Amino acid sequence: MREAYQSDLRHIVDDLLDMAEMVGTALEGATASLLEGDLARAERVVTADPHLDARQVELDAKAVELLARQAPVATDLRLLVATLRMSSSLERMGDLAAHIALVARRAHPGLAVPPQHREQIARMSALGLTALEGAAQVIETRDLALAAQVETQDDELDQLMLDISREISRSEEATYTAAQVIDLTLLIRFYERIGDHAVSLVRRIGFLVTGDSLDTLSEGVDVQEF
Amino acid sequence: MREAYQSDLRHIVDDLLDMAEMVGTALEGATASLLEGDLARAERVVTADPHLDARQVELDAKAVELLARQAPVATDLRLLVATLRMSSSLERMGDLAAHIALVARRAHPGLAVPPQHREQIARMSALGLTALEGAAQVIETRDLALAAQVETQDDELDQLMLDISREISRSEEATYTAAQVIDLTLLIRFYERIGDHAVSLVRRIGFLVTGDSLDTLSEGVDVQEF
Repeated sequence: MREAYQSDLRHIVDDLLDMAEMVGTALEGATASLLEGDLARAERVVTADPHLDARQVELDAKAVELLARQAPVATDLRLLVATLRMSSSLERMGDLAAHIALVARRAHPGLAVPPQHREQIARMSALGLTALEGAAQVIETRDLALAAQVETQDDELDQLMLDISREISRSEEATYTAAQVIDLTLLIRFYERIGDHAVSLVRRIGFLVTGDSLDTLSEGVDVQEF
Repeated sequence: MREAYQSDLRHIVDDLLDMAEMVGTALEGATASLLEGDLARAERVVTADPHLDARQVELDAKAVELLARQAPVATDLRLLVATLRMSSSLERMGDLAAHIALVARRAHPGLAVPPQHREQIARMSALGLTALEGAAQVIETRDLALAAQVETQDDELDQLMLDISREISRSEEATYTAAQVIDLTLLIRFYERIGDHAVSLVRRIGFLVTGDSLDTLSEGVDVQEF
């Protein structure tokens, strides 16, 4: 019985890691569809999203069942509580990737990202993916030094969002169409939010390890924002 | 002991309602500062946000402590699990209100919202507030008929976001500056997300009452988005 319980807890971590992998696939697909104007790939990202949603529903149900059946305390309790937050972040990251794919789809047969911003958007995507992979590793290893690194690296993503936003708002008139400004504004926000959720994930592992507050003041408003 | 526990559970609901009230105040203040270009009011919204964050941290700690100490089952367990999700949504709604105030602050001494969109933005804010107040009432009464109403009303908020976005992207060249397009795009997204979180809140009460899945496929991608 005790052994089955420990195995259930391990499965919960495996489920989180599976979800993280699905998000990574979605993010890579979304950015590729965006930069290459690949409509079929955009569609695949959008149609894959409900599978991630379903995984979250399953995982939440498992976590609630273990809370009910095992009345866990200490680290085991914190793992289940943190899981309920982490599954929600991962699901939302998947939504954001699908939103990116929807921007690609809407712009088709054109490209949503003008040539002068391709490299920055590719970099934002790479940073989001690195943050996600770092968070997955932190979920697996509970390595708080790596968690701190994920937090620090998020600053570059925030800075890129600011840079692109400023370049657009200070541009000569008629450099961009209104539709391009809308798309770019949404895209940089989606990538930045993916980074924020990766930071939330590692903070929840911090809670799991240290018992400190579950969400700290994590999603606070960055006064520098835009 | 049993009595103290029941009183603790009632306090948890009161805390959620307090948080909802703080969010409502923030949202009203943010929209007023935005439409009236009131810098002092925008500042007050931004500086109030950490208090909401702190309430979330306290509430989460209470919920985790009750999970550990009382090993609740059935409805009590679901209340605590749903609380951990709802506190997170309310905190995020507060962030979104603060983001709206930051847009007002950045535009000062100008106005971020051009005259032709004032009424639509005021309507989006009113709909967000109605959704929030509806959600608070659902948290208090567990009235699932009202919950369904909150969900339905969210469609108007989504539609307004679409309408404004389309008006901007189909406008004559030079109707808007790039900075105006950026601000409007962010604003309509922030209001729309506030509505989404209100829907999430009432769905979590659905989980509490029925035991169905905690998040359903709630935050799924709306393929119509933009």
